[in-house]
Amino acid sequence: MRPPGRDTIPRVKTPTTRSQAQELDTGDPIAAYRDRFALPPGRIYLDGNSLGPPMRDTEALLASTVRDQWRQELVSAWNSCGWIDLPRRVATAIAPLIGADDDEVMVADSTSVNLFKLLAAGLTMRPERRFILSEKENFPTDLYMAQGLAELLGERASLRLVERSRLAEALDDDVAILMLTQVDFRTGELLDLGDWTSAAHATGALVLCDLAHSAGALPVDLHALDVDLAVGCGYKYLNGGPGAPAFAYVARRLHDQLVSPLWGWMGHAAPFNFDSGYRPAPGVEQLQAGTPPILSLTALEHSVGLIAEIGIDRLWAKSQQLTQLFIELTAPIATKHGFEVATPRNPQHRGSQVSLRHAQGYAIVQALATDGVIGDFRAPDLLRFGFAPAYIRSVDVWDAAAVLGRVMDSGAWNRPEFYERRKVT
Amino acid sequence: MRPPGRDTIPRVKTPTTRSQAQELDTGDPIAAYRDRFALPPGRIYLDGNSLGPPMRDTEALLASTVRDQWRQELVSAWNSCGWIDLPRRVATAIAPLIGADDDEVMVADSTSVNLFKLLAAGLTMRPERRFILSEKENFPTDLYMAQGLAELLGERASLRLVERSRLAEALDDDVAILMLTQVDFRTGELLDLGDWTSAAHATGALVLCDLAHSAGALPVDLHALDVDLAVGCGYKYLNGGPGAPAFAYVARRLHDQLVSPLWGWMGHAAPFNFDSGYRPAPGVEQLQAGTPPILSLTALEHSVGLIAEIGIDRLWAKSQQLTQLFIELTAPIATKHGFEVATPRNPQHRGSQVSLRHAQGYAIVQALATDGVIGDFRAPDLLRFGFAPAYIRSVDVWDAAAVLGRVMDSGAWNRPEFYERRKVT
Repeated sequence: MRPPGRDTIPRVKTPTTRSQAQELDTGDPIAAYRDRFALPPGRIYLDGNSLGPPMRDTEALLASTVRDQWRQELVSAWNSCGWIDLPRRVATAIAPLIGADDDEVMVADSTSVNLFKLLAAGLTMRPERRFILSEKENFPTDLYMAQGLAELLGERASLRLVERSRLAEALDDDVAILMLTQVDFRTGELLDLGDWTSAAHATGALVLCDLAHSAGALPVDLHALDVDLAVGCGYKYLNGGPGAPAFAYVARRLHDQLVSPLWGWMGHAAPFNFDSGYRPAPGVEQLQAGTPPILSLTALEHSVGLIAEIGIDRLWAKSQQLTQLFIELTAPIATKHGFEVATPRNPQHRGSQVSLRHAQGYAIVQALATDGVIGDFRAPDLLRFGFAPAYIRSVDVWDAAAVLGRVMDSGAWNRPEFYERRKVT
Repeated sequence: MRPPGRDTIPRVKTPTTRSQAQELDTGDPIAAYRDRFALPPGRIYLDGNSLGPPMRDTEALLASTVRDQWRQELVSAWNSCGWIDLPRRVATAIAPLIGADDDEVMVADSTSVNLFKLLAAGLTMRPERRFILSEKENFPTDLYMAQGLAELLGERASLRLVERSRLAEALDDDVAILMLTQVDFRTGELLDLGDWTSAAHATGALVLCDLAHSAGALPVDLHALDVDLAVGCGYKYLNGGPGAPAFAYVARRLHDQLVSPLWGWMGHAAPFNFDSGYRPAPGVEQLQAGTPPILSLTALEHSVGLIAEIGIDRLWAKSQQLTQLFIELTAPIATKHGFEVATPRNPQHRGSQVSLRHAQGYAIVQALATDGVIGDFRAPDLLRFGFAPAYIRSVDVWDAAAVLGRVMDSGAWNRPEFYERRKVT
């Protein structure tokens, strides 16, 4: 799935005391980067897979963008401060994190909107085929965008949804696009995309991959995996802030067939000519549509820069250690209190996340939050814990496991207020 | 076009000295609001129709959003800081500025992407008709988005482009949507939309209106004008910042037929159920698609609040005074140096902008900028000056006219460096 040797994890002995866990952090080559993040005191944040935290200097950066760029330069800042090139700069910074070349990636809009662009583009590349094939458990917005496109296109397009175990048999000559998510948002399972791209290409289908839970946590290698189209999220492991812009990837071999359905002026070959006829910019540049959101892009550029500086291979090595440690430390609690580990035991087959199943999962997640451990819950029974390797320490894993043990042993989770559902989970 | 009496402008005598212009500002009931904006010293900014300036406290607001919300609350901020309701709150604030009810407006994505949603939705509402009709001089991204949709839908949709003078005859039974921009971005002409909605409705067509150069500068009354669908921009007269989110309007009578083509999870009736099947949220709520950009929305909420506080009727009255003053003060210069006023002389027929034609317009705009007067240029020969009434004073108009006179009389515009074209204009 990745080049050999790249993802060998150094095996470490599971600590049996908190100070042994701290020693692991002392030996961690990327430990110092935690200080670059602005983390609230008194909490262990295991939900960076939903929303990454800001950097310490994000606040000052945004203030300066308002003060020294927007205020001082006003509309001239599009040139004088390089705003016009900001989407390209961020895309270029993301490219090596996902095994792509610079000119195969663009940053624009949301993951959802980018899915629409690439699904429509993929159907155009396979005019004799009408199906988008995906699995029922794929991330909902991926399925919704495909459903909306199918509704819009009528006879021309349809979404075929099957269980993952039936994907191979559903991959027939009518499938234009196989749409998969690399890391399952519920279980954290890391799909072997290489097998799927081979299978899809053998039938003539394209593969569109959602990297929302991969980018920034593990070294995606889109070239080696032979993925055709991909999208990903800026606000999870890339820490770009709430609703940060998203990215889109199109393999270079498909550029001459690429037609985005959203012909916005920023994707025009010469937007400032104000011609009345659309002429797409070359390659992925046409995936820009409206005016790019500079404040959000500025935060994202900064946070992607830090992930690149730490290095995706080091992040991935640490991620595997952290998730392994959590599984091992919680194993006795799982046995005693009836948790099932929903995430693959083999670190090569999981993302930077561990999910536990428990019938009372919702109340347990609330109780953990009261004790400062922030995870999240996905119905009906999943407790999700994200271990963002850029700022989570081994001692945090130790402490989180200890809190889980206390919450379960004491029955502290079993209080009426923990059953009240939040609006957003 | 608007309710009688609402847009009567108090006629003022044209000042003949700078101190008379200053006296006009002394008598201006909304003069004090200028101090709420962060304007760079030494410049007269007449390009707020391209990008409005920040408020004085936008910098602190964004810093606090990072520090006290994103950092402190992390993912919980979606609930605890009301992020999840932010698009609705901003839409509710924009609604009265455009003569709409709260539940007819949504804030999401860019103007371009919202155009795509409403063009596709409009075609679905008129299944027997295939044409989107617009004028050749409409804003390019509006035309591009229609072209892209037509390309995607094949036989089902087509863009019919004619000169404005031929729109009426082109409005036949095959037209699903008449797409117009209320204020022409080149000339500043304010279209009488009421006449167009009557004509379109008589043939069974819908009217989609782009309010990019209207919202925040003049009191749009979508109900009185009987407009069906509208989009608008957050970063011009609404001052939301570079690439701020945009808005979309759908008349309530059409809500039961509304189908957005972009079925993102935030437009789902219950996004946090994570169902695999899409079920649209009621009415315009379905126009949300991906996760909303909180940093950008926070800046926009703040700036829209200020426009609402000043009051759109007072802004419009002042806007007409400012544009009238500029036309009158520059009349002798126009005569002497061969400028033609491209903007209608009747203040009821123009937006908050005056455009002058001159063959050397590009170099003149550069020379003005060197002297601190920021306008912009649109090929082949238009000098555009926006007079955002929230922060532009009569004395600024006086000074800008004086600078234009000096630049022309001295020939200062005629220098080689002013002929070098910028990347973004």
